[in-house]
Amino acid sequence: MLIIGERINSTRKTVAPAVKERNTAFIEDEARKQGEAGAHYIDCNGATVGREEEPEALCWLVQTVQACVNLPISLDSPNPDAIEAALKVHRGAPIINSITGEREKLERLLPLVRQYGAKVIALCMDDEGMPKTGEDRIRIGLRLIDRLLSAGVPEEDVILDPLLLPISVDSQHGISVLQAIAEFKRRCPNLKVSIGLTNVSYGLPERRWLNRATLILAMGAGLDAVICDPTDRDLMAMLLAAEALLGKDEFCARYLAAARAGLLSGA
Amino acid sequence: MLIIGERINSTRKTVAPAVKERNTAFIEDEARKQGEAGAHYIDCNGATVGREEEPEALCWLVQTVQACVNLPISLDSPNPDAIEAALKVHRGAPIINSITGEREKLERLLPLVRQYGAKVIALCMDDEGMPKTGEDRIRIGLRLIDRLLSAGVPEEDVILDPLLLPISVDSQHGISVLQAIAEFKRRCPNLKVSIGLTNVSYGLPERRWLNRATLILAMGAGLDAVICDPTDRDLMAMLLAAEALLGKDEFCARYLAAARAGLLSGA
Repeated sequence: MLIIGERINSTRKTVAPAVKERNTAFIEDEARKQGEAGAHYIDCNGATVGREEEPEALCWLVQTVQACVNLPISLDSPNPDAIEAALKVHRGAPIINSITGEREKLERLLPLVRQYGAKVIALCMDDEGMPKTGEDRIRIGLRLIDRLLSAGVPEEDVILDPLLLPISVDSQHGISVLQAIAEFKRRCPNLKVSIGLTNVSYGLPERRWLNRATLILAMGAGLDAVICDPTDRDLMAMLLAAEALLGKDEFCARYLAAARAGLLSGA
Repeated sequence: MLIIGERINSTRKTVAPAVKERNTAFIEDEARKQGEAGAHYIDCNGATVGREEEPEALCWLVQTVQACVNLPISLDSPNPDAIEAALKVHRGAPIINSITGEREKLERLLPLVRQYGAKVIALCMDDEGMPKTGEDRIRIGLRLIDRLLSAGVPEEDVILDPLLLPISVDSQHGISVLQAIAEFKRRCPNLKVSIGLTNVSYGLPERRWLNRATLILAMGAGLDAVICDPTDRDLMAMLLAAEALLGKDEFCARYLAAARAGLLSGA
């Protein structure tokens, strides 16, 4: 599983002022913790500083994080100007998080994806808005895949996100996403499928059980990547257990190593 | 999900002497705890008293449990004599746990299944022994289904168990069982599929993560029933979360009720 650490996101209460004030020590600490916990990418979102300031803030985040952990960044912005600025200062191959089927944004970002050899998270939504059913997600996703592949993006650089929405809003949202994951992997085994985890439990109490169960169900359906908090030890313990059960951890070697390191000692 | 409470099993250290000494208070306590925690059936296994004494011990277990909780029993014995004796004293429709494809046992138990209108757990093993792959499980299971249906057992009374074996022995055992569950449900949507949970993590440390992840993955594959410890609150919290995510808990009503009752307060 590819783990994209979600913590450096300016929509979080503690992160917004740290980005605004360019608090290097705070960001370094968040980056280091996530790297040590096993993140493969560090997501960086500085959008709350406002559209004008965001390109500079995102560049600062990328440089601050990459100066302290040797990891690529998931450039998380709705603003193509911020993405473009950050691509120029990023070392290695980042993830662009995200494109959608919205025509204008797609046409602006596709040349950048190709130019920088970036991976790209493609969200299953388009100019008609959010998907409702599993079929919506599959239809929008397949169209996005076509668009990306025909623009010359390699299949292995596409990370499709079926857009997990809160089950408190519609109790079919979970199963719709599981259907979409299985169908994408059946049709295009080489592309990756990812979800942002925590949204699923929005509006419900005791959210951690829902987040954990979502991760495991999605892994069972074929999930390759997840945007989550890697410092949540119990979530990571569940992830390791699921990999062992899915036959992706030969001789349970990683599970045993984690147990020896005391990482599975939670309740 | 049908929950079959596993705790009254004489292979457990504290239960063996309680069965041997016919300790009514101990058994009543175990039955009550499991009933309160949401068990739909109470599994009773008294096999450690020995073959001679087992029929009488199993009858005592059935009568002791049914005198204190109003639940049917899962009659858990490798010994057809014990099963037959217990069927005579059981109130309501029990589960016979279990039959296998082993010819002799099958021929002895099939008439009892019909006579008592019992549900039956059919384990995917036969005279050739334990299954190794997912294909083994599917082949043996389909043969068992045929045998049961052609003997007149209604499809809805068949509970197929694909036989979850420890992943410490073979890291493909988990995925094999998930494959088998999905295939059984695809072919025969009306029959139920069940697993005994705890076996999967035998020989590994920090087993609870593996047990929980197994339950969730199996539910995602279509599992209907599980033999587990319903007094394990964290396991039950995961189960409720998975039902909500799988669209089986409209408006998340059961999840919300459990949260209000303080049942989801674990780590």
